[in-house]
Amino acid sequence: MRIGILGYGNLGRGVEAAVRQNPDMELVAVFTRRNPESVKIKTESAKVLCVDAMENWKDKIDVLILCGGSATDLPVQTPKYAKMFNCIDSFDTHANIPVHFENVDKSAKEGGKVAIISVGWDPGLFSLNRMYANAILPEGNDYTFWGRGVSQGHSDAIRRVKGVKDGKQYTVPVEKAIQAVKNAENPMLSTREKHTRECFVVLEDGADSIQVEHDIVTMPNYFADYDTTVHFISEEEFKKNHSGIPHGGFVLRSGVTGLNKDEKHIIEYSLKLDSNPGFTSSVLVAYARAAFRMYKEGQTGCKTVFDVPPAYLSPKSAEELRKTML
Amino acid sequence: MRIGILGYGNLGRGVEAAVRQNPDMELVAVFTRRNPESVKIKTESAKVLCVDAMENWKDKIDVLILCGGSATDLPVQTPKYAKMFNCIDSFDTHANIPVHFENVDKSAKEGGKVAIISVGWDPGLFSLNRMYANAILPEGNDYTFWGRGVSQGHSDAIRRVKGVKDGKQYTVPVEKAIQAVKNAENPMLSTREKHTRECFVVLEDGADSIQVEHDIVTMPNYFADYDTTVHFISEEEFKKNHSGIPHGGFVLRSGVTGLNKDEKHIIEYSLKLDSNPGFTSSVLVAYARAAFRMYKEGQTGCKTVFDVPPAYLSPKSAEELRKTML
Repeated sequence: MRIGILGYGNLGRGVEAAVRQNPDMELVAVFTRRNPESVKIKTESAKVLCVDAMENWKDKIDVLILCGGSATDLPVQTPKYAKMFNCIDSFDTHANIPVHFENVDKSAKEGGKVAIISVGWDPGLFSLNRMYANAILPEGNDYTFWGRGVSQGHSDAIRRVKGVKDGKQYTVPVEKAIQAVKNAENPMLSTREKHTRECFVVLEDGADSIQVEHDIVTMPNYFADYDTTVHFISEEEFKKNHSGIPHGGFVLRSGVTGLNKDEKHIIEYSLKLDSNPGFTSSVLVAYARAAFRMYKEGQTGCKTVFDVPPAYLSPKSAEELRKTML
Repeated sequence: MRIGILGYGNLGRGVEAAVRQNPDMELVAVFTRRNPESVKIKTESAKVLCVDAMENWKDKIDVLILCGGSATDLPVQTPKYAKMFNCIDSFDTHANIPVHFENVDKSAKEGGKVAIISVGWDPGLFSLNRMYANAILPEGNDYTFWGRGVSQGHSDAIRRVKGVKDGKQYTVPVEKAIQAVKNAENPMLSTREKHTRECFVVLEDGADSIQVEHDIVTMPNYFADYDTTVHFISEEEFKKNHSGIPHGGFVLRSGVTGLNKDEKHIIEYSLKLDSNPGFTSSVLVAYARAAFRMYKEGQTGCKTVFDVPPAYLSPKSAEELRKTML
């Protein structure tokens, strides 16, 4: 299976590493909007090329994995390239998924290709688990907690505050809330009761820490509705302890069965990830395998994780899966 | 969707209750090997019938849910009835799944029906999670822990010991072992290190508790390889505190990503169930919906949870799922 990558940031590099862990795949090209000569990749056998060259690669790539952002890249790129390639993206603006789906579906059908959108862990594996748990326990409550992990958006927001040289924000699920859910107490939880926000900030020389802290914790949309803690640390400590991009979270469903609805059940799915892009890219690569299989079967159009038979993600045959994993 | 049940034990009663929680389904008939007049069900609109009458119901049932045991019932029943009905079973003798699959596949194809076998939580949801996690993290280790919950087989074994009036066995996962896995320590765990076994026993009048305890803890295959605790309790306490059939467990995969394989990730799926049959039957019912959809699409033959697109389990449309759950 010949894989192409569009965009060589954290996610693109993660896909490159993940492809190496899958012997049935080969990275053949990385497409970039930068000057290709300025981009050094780790796979000697693969080419680095300008995005303008993509059209010439239509028949040399089985699946293109799009590694751009959801704000401006993917809404344009996935519909554009789904005409030429089987595509995987990690579009994660939940509210815009229906529109993105329609756009990609139209293109993929036009080109006779398969595109799977919104692949990753949320949306992605978390969505799958929400869906399975809801189908199995139709009467119940859903809970999703994120973290402990780095929120890129909130870290960006911190860095825009005057006096901040560098900053990172961790979203932290409230242990007490998780325990209440696991105990089948079906709590009603406010935003503040579910997560806290912990910020690590390096100040500019001469900045006023009281003012910076105030500007962060009162920031609307990002921090005002949460209990937020701000830690001021040295640049050295920041680099040493806060250079990673860990993340994770929990999807829980608490539901009842029985004639009297007195049997309580808890379904829990949780992830603890050293590297958000490292894990997300591994999900993308598994779904690339599925997209290519669906394409070879003659399917076309846009799909999501809900549409993909689980076995299509695995390099193992159906017989082997039944024998070893069922 | 018209549902039939074959076998009205704990699981059959669970399916009856689960059907009521799904407005797109209706229980139309319960088939039994007992005298139908001796079987009282909770659904007034459904009939109780002798198994011999099943053939006459071929066109009046959309999916038959088989609620017999894996030892002797299902190996015969599922191949037999997959010729006449779309079928769901919970066949759980892992080692015999390939043979059972072949037998059911042949029948279902002959009859132009869909049968989904080995549905439940293990095999079933646990298998699914093992498979997804392996496809996403190809380099890593799998761990499955069961419990805390009642093992029917081990409880039966206790009750066969001389001097035992009644007994129940709980399989208990070792917390220390689970924590080591969650900490990505990738431990090598012996049978004894993963689970302990806790027994609650009501003695016959005049029985020798020392002898009974000895006979239980040294029993080969069942208890000898485990740290087993035996509690002797009164019949009253037994009925009060040990009449339920709770169960659950954990599926964990610990894996690595990254060029240097230094990013560690933990995927965890866990269930905490008040009633094993209550939950299992809810899984069966969700897969009944999927079987009927696959049948209506023209598919035939034997399937497992690995083959079923997740969306087929849900009563919601694809649009609705994308909008609300992705």
